[in-house]
Amino acid sequence: MAHITLPEGYPGIRGPMMFRPETAKPLNELVEVLLRGPHSLTQGERELIATYVSSRNDCVYCQTIHGAIAAHHLDGNEALVQSVKLDPEEAEVSEKMKALLTIAGKVQIGGKSVTTEDVERAKALGASDLEIHDTVLIAAVFCLCNRYVDGLATWTPTDADFYRQRAAIVAERGYAAAARTPGVPAGQAGR
Amino acid sequence: MAHITLPEGYPGIRGPMMFRPETAKPLNELVEVLLRGPHSLTQGERELIATYVSSRNDCVYCQTIHGAIAAHHLDGNEALVQSVKLDPEEAEVSEKMKALLTIAGKVQIGGKSVTTEDVERAKALGASDLEIHDTVLIAAVFCLCNRYVDGLATWTPTDADFYRQRAAIVAERGYAAAARTPGVPAGQAGR
Repeated sequence: MAHITLPEGYPGIRGPMMFRPETAKPLNELVEVLLRGPHSLTQGERELIATYVSSRNDCVYCQTIHGAIAAHHLDGNEALVQSVKLDPEEAEVSEKMKALLTIAGKVQIGGKSVTTEDVERAKALGASDLEIHDTVLIAAVFCLCNRYVDGLATWTPTDADFYRQRAAIVAERGYAAAARTPGVPAGQAGR
Repeated sequence: MAHITLPEGYPGIRGPMMFRPETAKPLNELVEVLLRGPHSLTQGERELIATYVSSRNDCVYCQTIHGAIAAHHLDGNEALVQSVKLDPEEAEVSEKMKALLTIAGKVQIGGKSVTTEDVERAKALGASDLEIHDTVLIAAVFCLCNRYVDGLATWTPTDADFYRQRAAIVAERGYAAAARTPGVPAGQAGR
């Protein structure tokens, strides 16, 4: 049960977002720009960064929904998402992505963990300042979201198909519009 | 030196915000609603939560600027701000604020660290669901900001008066408007 009384039927971050629309609006806009705005990193790559950080923070809701969205963008390749969560250096992603995921993992520990060497490695592999900036900010934003979701002990569905279906809606409509879709009736989604 | 090339003369979070205005806009709006919107917690109390979390994350820029803003709202009582950073339980704040600061400190560690007992204590001392929600979200937002500032190795001025002067501007104009004020010429602000 959540630590405070949240609207029924909204899993994960959607519960507190329904509870407090004034903060949900800018937070959804921030995630929309970072994960879905025009970019040299694909949406799948950016969702992988979000998933990896959420996995390191042990946030089941965030790593599962963003992992499902990442897979949706990557031709349904759920095995790739799992391998990034296990060890980015061994995953089948570009060398540049490995360097960016390393930076994201350092941000998850704390900002000061990111070293000049981490950043130089990414730059040498072709990462732009914008890509490095956005990697740091995506990682930091998910350190927020993971704490928001788990700090209020929100509802975490256990049915993987629930996340796959939701991922398709988010991938199609975006974060702000998807946030306005109805909740899930009690008893569904592995409640 | 910052890890990426940022606009000159903008300390702390202001550098990457000038670099990436598309993400700065919703992030400033989020902070504005949380720290300055209509609320049952005073602006000073909310800034204390931000300062405490930033101190626990060892982010010098954030803990100093938000500590200065907190003091500005608390009749210039910098000693109170310092005592909250050292140990909220021994600080001269209300029992409810001690309970909320304890929750914020748990969020800094990780969302799952917040216990039912932590939340029940706050409720028993009069904290509303909204106050608990916003405490968790303020703490989570500063886990973002601290990582954003330090993960990019931004410029951290060392002159305390710089922060006091900036605090007065932010307290008067708010985060979004203050973000649009000019940067600081090189050689100033303990650069």
